[in-house]
Amino acid sequence: MIVIMKQSAEQEQIDKLKKEFEEMGLQIHLSQGVNTTLMGLVGDTTKIDIGKVASMDIVEEVKRIQEPYKKANRKFHPQDTVIEVGSAKIGGGNFQVIAGPCSVETPQQICQVAQAVKASGASLLRGGAFKPRTSPYAFQGLRGEGISLLSQAKKETGLPIVTEIMSYEDIDLFDDVDVIQVGARNMQNFELLKQLGKLDKPILLKRGMSATIEEFLMSAEYIMAQGNEKVILCERGIRTFETKTRNTLDMSAVPMLKKLSHLPVMIDPSHATGIPWMVEPMTLAAIAAGADGVMIEVHNDPPKALCDGAQSLRPEQFDSLMKKVQKTAEFFKTL
Amino acid sequence: MIVIMKQSAEQEQIDKLKKEFEEMGLQIHLSQGVNTTLMGLVGDTTKIDIGKVASMDIVEEVKRIQEPYKKANRKFHPQDTVIEVGSAKIGGGNFQVIAGPCSVETPQQICQVAQAVKASGASLLRGGAFKPRTSPYAFQGLRGEGISLLSQAKKETGLPIVTEIMSYEDIDLFDDVDVIQVGARNMQNFELLKQLGKLDKPILLKRGMSATIEEFLMSAEYIMAQGNEKVILCERGIRTFETKTRNTLDMSAVPMLKKLSHLPVMIDPSHATGIPWMVEPMTLAAIAAGADGVMIEVHNDPPKALCDGAQSLRPEQFDSLMKKVQKTAEFFKTL
Amino acid sequence: MIVIMKQSAEQEQIDKLKKEFEEMGLQIHLSQGVNTTLMGLVGDTTKIDIGKVASMDIVEEVKRIQEPYKKANRKFHPQDTVIEVGSAKIGGGNFQVIAGPCSVETPQQICQVAQAVKASGASLLRGGAFKPRTSPYAFQGLRGEGISLLSQAKKETGLPIVTEIMSYEDIDLFDDVDVIQVGARNMQNFELLKQLGKLDKPILLKRGMSATIEEFLMSAEYIMAQGNEKVILCERGIRTFETKTRNTLDMSAVPMLKKLSHLPVMIDPSHATGIPWMVEPMTLAAIAAGADGVMIEVHNDPPKALCDGAQSLRPEQFDSLMKKVQKTAEFFKTL
Amino acid sequence: MIVIMKQSAEQEQIDKLKKEFEEMGLQIHLSQGVNTTLMGLVGDTTKIDIGKVASMDIVEEVKRIQEPYKKANRKFHPQDTVIEVGSAKIGGGNFQVIAGPCSVETPQQICQVAQAVKASGASLLRGGAFKPRTSPYAFQGLRGEGISLLSQAKKETGLPIVTEIMSYEDIDLFDDVDVIQVGARNMQNFELLKQLGKLDKPILLKRGMSATIEEFLMSAEYIMAQGNEKVILCERGIRTFETKTRNTLDMSAVPMLKKLSHLPVMIDPSHATGIPWMVEPMTLAAIAAGADGVMIEVHNDPPKALCDGAQSLRPEQFDSLMKKVQKTAEFFKTL
Repeated sequence: MIVIMKQSAEQEQIDKLKKEFEEMGLQIHLSQGVNTTLMGLVGDTTKIDIGKVASMDIVEEVKRIQEPYKKANRKFHPQDTVIEVGSAKIGGGNFQVIAGPCSVETPQQICQVAQAVKASGASLLRGGAFKPRTSPYAFQGLRGEGISLLSQAKKETGLPIVTEIMSYEDIDLFDDVDVIQVGARNMQNFELLKQLGKLDKPILLKRGMSATIEEFLMSAEYIMAQGNEKVILCERGIRTFETKTRNTLDMSAVPMLKKLSHLPVMIDPSHATGIPWMVEPMTLAAIAAGADGVMIEVHNDPPKALCDGAQSLRPEQFDSLMKKVQKTAEFFKTL
Repeated sequence: MIVIMKQSAEQEQIDKLKKEFEEMGLQIHLSQGVNTTLMGLVGDTTKIDIGKVASMDIVEEVKRIQEPYKKANRKFHPQDTVIEVGSAKIGGGNFQVIAGPCSVETPQQICQVAQAVKASGASLLRGGAFKPRTSPYAFQGLRGEGISLLSQAKKETGLPIVTEIMSYEDIDLFDDVDVIQVGARNMQNFELLKQLGKLDKPILLKRGMSATIEEFLMSAEYIMAQGNEKVILCERGIRTFETKTRNTLDMSAVPMLKKLSHLPVMIDPSHATGIPWMVEPMTLAAIAAGADGVMIEVHNDPPKALCDGAQSLRPEQFDSLMKKVQKTAEFFKTL
Repeated sequence: MIVIMKQSAEQEQIDKLKKEFEEMGLQIHLSQGVNTTLMGLVGDTTKIDIGKVASMDIVEEVKRIQEPYKKANRKFHPQDTVIEVGSAKIGGGNFQVIAGPCSVETPQQICQVAQAVKASGASLLRGGAFKPRTSPYAFQGLRGEGISLLSQAKKETGLPIVTEIMSYEDIDLFDDVDVIQVGARNMQNFELLKQLGKLDKPILLKRGMSATIEEFLMSAEYIMAQGNEKVILCERGIRTFETKTRNTLDMSAVPMLKKLSHLPVMIDPSHATGIPWMVEPMTLAAIAAGADGVMIEVHNDPPKALCDGAQSLRPEQFDSLMKKVQKTAEFFKTL
Repeated sequence: MIVIMKQSAEQEQIDKLKKEFEEMGLQIHLSQGVNTTLMGLVGDTTKIDIGKVASMDIVEEVKRIQEPYKKANRKFHPQDTVIEVGSAKIGGGNFQVIAGPCSVETPQQICQVAQAVKASGASLLRGGAFKPRTSPYAFQGLRGEGISLLSQAKKETGLPIVTEIMSYEDIDLFDDVDVIQVGARNMQNFELLKQLGKLDKPILLKRGMSATIEEFLMSAEYIMAQGNEKVILCERGIRTFETKTRNTLDMSAVPMLKKLSHLPVMIDPSHATGIPWMVEPMTLAAIAAGADGVMIEVHNDPPKALCDGAQSLRPEQFDSLMKKVQKTAEFFKTL
């Protein structure tokens, strides 16, 4: 961390601040010029509150050099984290596909889709039981019953299940859930993150629509700081001015997250684009960019879907995509 | 709502869809051209799932005309909502100032600030007990103890208190709180909104950093749909590419929200800009733009603040601002 | 400027770089820690290419401290620049209103509007002759003839005229123009800026839709670096995700630009919002925020306007607004 | 186009408007409900000014259905446009790589880079002669001399050359240039686009930093409307809130542009990300997403580059990338 002092700062004040930092266990390197005095802080600065230092009368500006996240940081954990879910390995060069309907609707629907995506090669089943909908008048999900139906589909197919939690009060319903998803709108629901950090269960954390990559990693850090290091990052589109796609899939976030962190990185092309025919090119591009997997919406009857049918693939479209996914993942493994 | 059919849609399919809509109690106006068939849906379309209709094979596009919010909509409630908190009236042409520190820290601090802001003319006291911090390593607030300190300051000054809730599990601690704040990061924490909708207590709802005005109103609708119609909207800056200010204060949201909704609209210039000297011009501009109030951070010793000191005013700066606020509010009342 | 060296940088390389900087006339303050070596560069660093330094093998990151603009910088020119156009003074606490139609259309239209806005108190007349339209099929302006019509209106009313240039090839047509406007889409048309920098005529420079405040000032610097220091900055809305308004008026840019630069700052509420009833609240807010003026579209018959009629005020609306503008400007002068 | 009338619209007014549209050669389908009257306009609506219609007193809102571009529209030109430059075919399933330095600097530099990129398999040489730099104090390019050096490199290697134009006044210098580039900052420099539209030479048009896909296609339409249909679209990153990458590469723009238009689509991973190690994953992802090519910065000595060295690949890095590009392009051709 570099602290740039105001020209008006007096020597006495500078000395006092320097001493304060030293008492926090930091080493201080002072560089005094004619117009500017800089303080370089060396040591563990993750606990320093930038805002607080910046608000001091004698401080012009503070610039962080070190990343503010530690557990999620690849610097301190160079090898890829690999998370095992059932027989699927997420991270470390394995490409996994999570597939299923936006919402769980009926036993028939979820089992039919589960069978289909399994047959096509998906390794995890997704399905929404608790649904974050913009409108209070829209279908809010089957909730507890939805999770029961997912469990049933899991029993029938053997596929591990992924579903979203919206409130920690519902945690007891998630016993049979293999991966708990935190949606984009809750990425900075810090109380929820802290509680999930105490579990021993993988968390699929979606990037908030306007979250920077650093904030995204800080939210992962919230979970990890409590002890749960099984976090899967999922880019699902950011909010920009462009309206042709629902959000703008930030494909460069894939290599950036892989560089900064050891955690697995997936993308969600269905929600990012909101357009079914875009799922294929964005999935293939994600493989090329180095992603560890994708999460794809599949519905047996999209127009009848109770939510987001517009972006779902039909099972036969998904099957055709999976053939390409397998070949493409294979190709890039050996490139 | 207008449904634009694909050119490939067959008459039989169009008739079937028309019938389905009619069974939902809607009136359908069909307009068939050489290349395009349009269906105009008249009636209560708030419950129709746009995504679902858009995903139908025969549908090219769906365009909503009616706003998807009802209780928050000025069309159905033309007069301003006025929310009374203690002796303060929020909305309806009254300009109110909520002031206080970012975080409650010590009994001395909160009482000192409370006395000061009261003396300067603030009508409500704010103070953070539960703090949503980007970093898990930053100060997270005094939590329950913080609320106790706020209560004490309320007793001493008579100022009603405003503080943020982060999880509904803590609701019992909010008995003495007069206005419950929902922070920007929880604006789409729908489970929390639903629960707050069952209370009989004003909710100050902050706009999410990347929330559209429509989404903001839909979140108010979540609270109101459960019965609690005492919602105060608060614009606090949106996320854009500009980095000179922490966020970009969307001043035009003030008249827009006032036009679309009957709810009171406040702004938070401290969080929007992150810069103390910007609080004054943005506060005066908010009055000119028609806002019902502002929320301002005041700290007795900003550099020692445990959070966001950088953007806080000192009591004497706040006092000087309040003198201008009163004159300006008076001026615009008679303009 | 601070140069942060990579941990892998060798002493010899650091010394070599230090020497290079010193040869550019800079003073170097070296701060060497266990993990990080910082170089503080003191002197005129505006000419250093950050990208180039950042690309060096031994450099981790470069951070600029000094602003990269000089002539536009208030630090080197503390007093407000006041630009005189006819009898109007722009800047320095004078509030000026530029008004007129989006496009010049007919002699009747422009003279009628000119008479009207003059009577209401506008001090400059605007009117588009060269029109930057998104579509090649939309009305492109009367071009040279439009400027002749403006000249005529100037003769009749005595109002100085403001009109946009789109290509320097047309400069001969601008002899009688008092203020040359550079539109948002040309804010980084650097060749045009350079050429306008050689004139002795005020330039009204609009902020690009996605230009940062720093880039905006750098574009002013382009003009000023060639000798023409009469630049008026105009905020006209930035592009964000919000769709209720055409763009998002960045009101906080007003005090920020006034702080960073001595140049006059105006806002254009008509283009920023695209909504006629928003012009009034945004104009009053701009006065409160400290702007030096506004630019407002007025058309005698908005629905018949050949361009952007949707956002124009009618003369009687403008007149009513001007009464409030005068009182409000007066009020804030003495606040 | 659909025109939604206000409830207050009187029959007489509606009839008058209907008649006006009919006189423009449009067919009108009227749909009158209890609360809403809709007018569906069928025919060529590209020339209707939406703003003008929207500003009418009786009109609530106007929604366009038809795209406002014709010549660039795939609907009217279903097969891919293939542009031949020397022996390279751009578009139609051919993947082409344009490579070279950000700026042309010396004869040695440009020839060395040209030889290197040719040997690695690039099919066109790029190099900046006129440089759009944010700062007036930064290196502005060798201008005419830069183009001469490019010509020399073309003679030595046989590679066609691509370079940017900043002002049409310089057009005579571009005789030997094979593809004229329009930079992001000039994407809406409509006067320049019109003039380039009269040439018989391919134009590589870069997307503006805050341009929507529709605006991007409208700028292509500007060129095409004048007769020059050889336009190559180039996505180079859009401006968002994310700061880890210079801009955010909108990868989904590739399939979207290919769907909406028949023009070739390239990406520029160097400028989009600003980070050399990101060029490879983004290039491979672009191939997977269906792009027709990429434009990559290569410099023989990045730290010595006079501009943007930070993002350039060294020739050996480029060579290694090209081996992967060829295999990947081959792979996707047969997938």
